[in-house]
Formats: sequence, structure tokens, C-alpha cells
Amino acid sequence: MSLGLVTPQVLNFATPLKLQSGASIADYNLVVETYGQLNAQKSNAILICHALNASHHVAGVSASDPNDLGWWDNMVGPGKPVDTNRFFVIGVNNLGSCFGSTGPMSVNPSTGKPYGATFPVVTVEDWVNAQARVADHFQIQKFAAVMGGSLGGMQAMAWSMMYPNRIGHCIVIASTPKLSAQNIAFNEVARSAILSDPDFHGGDYYAHDVKPRRGLRVARMIGHITYLSDDDMAEKFGRELRRADGDSDEYNFNFDVEFEVESYLRYQGEKFADYFDANTYLLITRALDYFDPAKSFANNLSAAMKNIAAKFLVVSFSTDWRFAPERSREIVKALLDNKLDVTYGEIDAPHGHDAFLLEDPRYHNLVRAYFEQIAQELQS
Amino acid sequence: MSLGLVTPQVLNFATPLKLQSGASIADYNLVVETYGQLNAQKSNAILICHALNASHHVAGVSASDPNDLGWWDNMVGPGKPVDTNRFFVIGVNNLGSCFGSTGPMSVNPSTGKPYGATFPVVTVEDWVNAQARVADHFQIQKFAAVMGGSLGGMQAMAWSMMYPNRIGHCIVIASTPKLSAQNIAFNEVARSAILSDPDFHGGDYYAHDVKPRRGLRVARMIGHITYLSDDDMAEKFGRELRRADGDSDEYNFNFDVEFEVESYLRYQGEKFADYFDANTYLLITRALDYFDPAKSFANNLSAAMKNIAAKFLVVSFSTDWRFAPERSREIVKALLDNKLDVTYGEIDAPHGHDAFLLEDPRYHNLVRAYFEQIAQELQS
Repeated sequence: MSLGLVTPQVLNFATPLKLQSGASIADYNLVVETYGQLNAQKSNAILICHALNASHHVAGVSASDPNDLGWWDNMVGPGKPVDTNRFFVIGVNNLGSCFGSTGPMSVNPSTGKPYGATFPVVTVEDWVNAQARVADHFQIQKFAAVMGGSLGGMQAMAWSMMYPNRIGHCIVIASTPKLSAQNIAFNEVARSAILSDPDFHGGDYYAHDVKPRRGLRVARMIGHITYLSDDDMAEKFGRELRRADGDSDEYNFNFDVEFEVESYLRYQGEKFADYFDANTYLLITRALDYFDPAKSFANNLSAAMKNIAAKFLVVSFSTDWRFAPERSREIVKALLDNKLDVTYGEIDAPHGHDAFLLEDPRYHNLVRAYFEQIAQELQS
Repeated sequence: MSLGLVTPQVLNFATPLKLQSGASIADYNLVVETYGQLNAQKSNAILICHALNASHHVAGVSASDPNDLGWWDNMVGPGKPVDTNRFFVIGVNNLGSCFGSTGPMSVNPSTGKPYGATFPVVTVEDWVNAQARVADHFQIQKFAAVMGGSLGGMQAMAWSMMYPNRIGHCIVIASTPKLSAQNIAFNEVARSAILSDPDFHGGDYYAHDVKPRRGLRVARMIGHITYLSDDDMAEKFGRELRRADGDSDEYNFNFDVEFEVESYLRYQGEKFADYFDANTYLLITRALDYFDPAKSFANNLSAAMKNIAAKFLVVSFSTDWRFAPERSREIVKALLDNKLDVTYGEIDAPHGHDAFLLEDPRYHNLVRAYFEQIAQELQS
């Protein structure tokens, strides 16, 4: 069953939001979509947090575009693991993103020009504070669950630490308590490609009516390599040459597309450069780099988690080399150090980091069973 | 013991070399360095093949630059694993490279202008054919051994298949019988960064007196991530912030260098953009992509190796995720299928792909023992 057509709402917040950097942002919009019905007690709300390139459009088909299916439509909907017949689900586009919420492309009311490079650096914690205001808007005192994959999982974790009384369950999928040096390195290469693109114009490319497409392309190509597993790439592309039927399988001896994997990466890069904003890319990768809740607890994650009250579902995927199962086990260990209630699933799946977005029966059944339990808790 | 000062020689070849692509190159130079003495029987010659960014300058200190130590000086020299008191060692800069051998920066005699983008695509097999002429120049009918790491190992393997009677031992370190889709993907991202750099000018940047530095920087940064292991990066950099003594350990909330790993990558990128040629980068990564000796044998590596007569030493490193031990084992298996004499060492080392360039006692002792055996065979 599908949700059918869905329509976003724009929420305006007129009270300035103080950011972790010390800056603040005044009068900002956040775009949300909601699915299902909020019950009378307002106890059945689920917040879904998005990762790098996604948005508020979690499930259903955009009323404005019949081809625009939500990024987690296989997970959220009537009868799906996160069942919208039972739960009221909110998807929110984060501050600084480029899908309608206030971000670098938005006009800064104090200058009348797009924020561009002047948009403040935002963190996972800033997003969570902004999301708490979304909860207030809906008069939701406590989410039944906050859920996310990858960077979305970081937001869910931050919720459990920052608002321990406002989250019943925390669902952290394919995530990590902090980026490794290698993770930061990949982000840095992607950012370097954008920052050094002559069309970047120091972040103020809107005024020049251009986009740093080259940088965005390279950034996305690097990203895709890290989202897929080595095996998955071998399975999908191997060393297949990009050829029309009947063409020779001899090499072309040039630097055009020769192998299928090159064609795939170039296509993904082009598509991304069409729809994504470069300043947003910089902001979101920096939020990833900065997330490190243990930092102010002498790198002791267990200490950082000492006030958590939520129950946890943590899920990792065997071939995810971006945020490998070891990283999820660090989260689980720190939760167990605090004698918290944790369910942990390590799914044997070939699809690397991307697995969290795909439909795998073992994975979806685990999430489904966990949400059954949440629903039962709400009824009792 | 070190070799002391060494001086390269330029060898000119006036007979055109037919390339795998069908093109040919006329009147080309190859730069070589030699260490040790060729014996009267000319039986003690070792050819060292270089990888992506290296050159003929394998060992010793350049007579022209006291800071320029050879790239494999820990491996080659008097008393070292490849002992120049016993062996006559040749380092050769490959065709298409940018360290003195004829390549894209060289003037095309037929136009009077640099080859630039018109320099033909060269393959591992083309390099081996060119190296065979170097052997001819020194009147070496048969190398006691051909040795290389990474792309250099591919050249050694190709020698064993293309000139089975001209190679006694084949030493293949941290290499692979062919790139995986993921390996090609990383090369493609690096090439995309170069090809899309506005200073690339379709490969004819020499005429514009510029270099596609942005592309080279990004290419090198990506490369460095793949040369180091995740653990090695964690050990070297972790999440350490780039700070002067006494500075705050609070984040800066911007896109400048924040973490040590970013500083390292940017430095490596800048250095590489200073000394390396972008057209050469394209050519050498394409040679990597194309190497696939099993391709013309219905992807049967054992069949491709059926004419090999050389004995083999194959070495891999446990944390090398670029060319993992599994890839070396494919080589070993295909050799064993042909009942060839193979020594295989899998070294437990933390330094990823870069380990082949580093001094590790287990690794060096294995190579040393193997060369002892070669020396004994030569005496008997």
C-alpha cells in the first residue's frame, strides 16, 4: 500500500535559533511532510531524519511530480514497517538544506540577497534543536521514536542525548558515533573539488547565475563509491565495457567512458549537479565531520550517553565500509555501559552503506517487529 | 649502505614502437638509472618497474639534487634486499611518464609542439615492449628478475607472459591481475577532476602556460585515501584538530583546514600538482584500467599464464584494500594451475597499499631470502 499523493507544508519560525557556532539564524522556514494521523494524546509521532542529499519527502508521491517517490517509501506507509495506519510520521528538511527549508539559496532578509557563503555552519545538534521546534509546532511533547539512517542516525542519537524526555525510542541505522579520519578525508576531497571549482565564486555563484557543477559531480562520484560495497560494484558493473549491441569488445584507447562503472558514476554526478546545491553540500558534510558527542566528555561515549532514557534499535550492514558494523557496535557498547535497553541487528547484506535505503526482508522485518513493540507500548 | 650519488642516462630509440592501440611512437627517449655491475655473462640484471607517480630514480641520491632519494632506496642498494653488490639493477621511466622519458610534455617531432592530448594511450604491454628494447640496449638477453609493486607488479607479470624466455624470476608485490570496478571508479573520479578542470584545455595546457592544478590536487587526494588503510589513517590522524600550541580545541565552524587529515591531504595534493603532469596521470591510470591479461583468454587467468616459464615471488599486505591479498591469491592460484614455482608471502602490516614502499622486516627479509636464492642459482 502506498500513501498516494503527498504535499509538503512550510513552517515558519520567527524566534531566532542560536547555533552551536555562536551565530544565530532569524526567521527561518522548515519544510515538512506528515503521514498518518496524530492521535488525541499526541503520543504516536515518529520523526524521520534525513541524510546528506534527502529531504522532508520521505514517503508517498509528490502531488506536484508523479515521478517523485519519497526516499524511504519502502519503509514508511500504510502496512509498511513504519506503519502510517498507526503512527503519525514527520519528515523534515533540515536547516541549510536545499529543498525548501532556509539555507544558502534563501534570501537573507537583512541583505535582500541569497545567504550563499554567509549561511552559518550548522551541526547535527542545531538540526535537532530546530526539529524540537517542529515538535512544539505540532504540540508533540514526546516522539514515540526518532529514526534515521547514516547522518539521520546521528540526529536520532543526538535527540536521545539532548532531549532525553522527548524521545521514547531511538532508531539508528547504518550510522556511527563519529566520523573516522578516512570518512573525513573523503568529505574533504569532495569539498576541495567544490571549493576549487572556478564557478564556485567563494560560495556566491547564485549572483553569477552559474553552479559549480564540476565540483558537485566529482563530490557525488566519490560519494557513490563509498555508498556501494566493493562486491556490489563488482556484481553491478564488474569490468563490463560500455558498448552498444554488436560493438567490438576491444578497448577504445581514450579517456571517454569505456567501462560501465564510469558511465554510472558520470550519470550520477550529472544528475546530482542538476538538483543539489553546492553550499548545502559543504554544510552537510561539515555537520557530518563535526558530529562527535563524546568530544566534550573526554572522548568517552558512555559518559556522553549517561542521561539517555530512550530505548534503542541499532542496525548495521555487513558490507557497509563507510560506517561499518564495528561503528554501530561502539554505539551499542556505550548504551550497554549505561544499562540501556538496546536491540542490535547486524544484517548480512551485499549492498554496502546504501543497504539502509533498500528493501531487505531481514532488515525490514526487524524494523517492523520493533515498531510493533512501540505500538504495543503505546496501547498499554 | 647507500649507493651514493646516481646519474640518469637518456637512451634514444629510433625504431618506431608499435603500440597496442594500433598507433605507434617514433624516435622516443627512455631515461634509465643503473646500479651495480653487469657481469660478463650479462646474467645478473634486475629490472625494477615503477608505479603511478614514480620514475627511473629507484635508489641512491640524485647527483643533481641531494634531497632526491630514490623511491625504493630501502629495497635496492649495497647489502639491501636487492643487493647491488651482486646484481645489476635497472630503473626505467616508462613511455608517457613525465620524468624525462618521451611523454605528453615532449615535443612531437612531426609538429614541433608538445604532444599534449595527442600522445597515444599506452598500456602495460607497450611499456614492457619498450623495456625489452632497454634490455637489448644493454645486451641483456634474459633478466635474472623483473620486479615491481602495484602497477609495477603488473609490468613484471606482463614480462612473464610476453617474454617467457627473457625473465628468470618475476616479483609481484601488492598487485592484482586486473582492476576491480571499485579501482576503476576511483581512477575515473580522479580523471574527471582533471578533465573538467578549466585549466586542462583539452590536454593542451602547455600552450596556455597553465596546469590543471585543481584536478591534480583532487586526483592525488583521492589516491592517498586509497593508498593508506583506514586503521593507518586513524593511527596517523584520528580526529585530531589542526591547531597551534595553546589554541582552543573548539571547532572553527568553517571550511578551512580543521582536522589534521585535511591538512595532510591538501599538502599532498599541492606537492603532487607541483611535480606531476596531468596528461601523464590520465595515461597511467588508463594503463591500470586496461591491464587484464585474461581478457583475451575468455577471462581465464590460468590460460593467459600457460606459457610462463619464470619462477614467482608474490607478496601482499593484510590491510591493503586497494589491491587486497585476495587479488594476489588469484595470481598465485593461476600460477599453481600451471604447476609453476611460486613463493607467496602475505604480510600482516598496518600501512595499507603503501606498505610495499615501506621498510618492514618480515617483508624485506622475505625479498632478501628470495634474492639470495636467485644469486645462488646464478652461481650454479
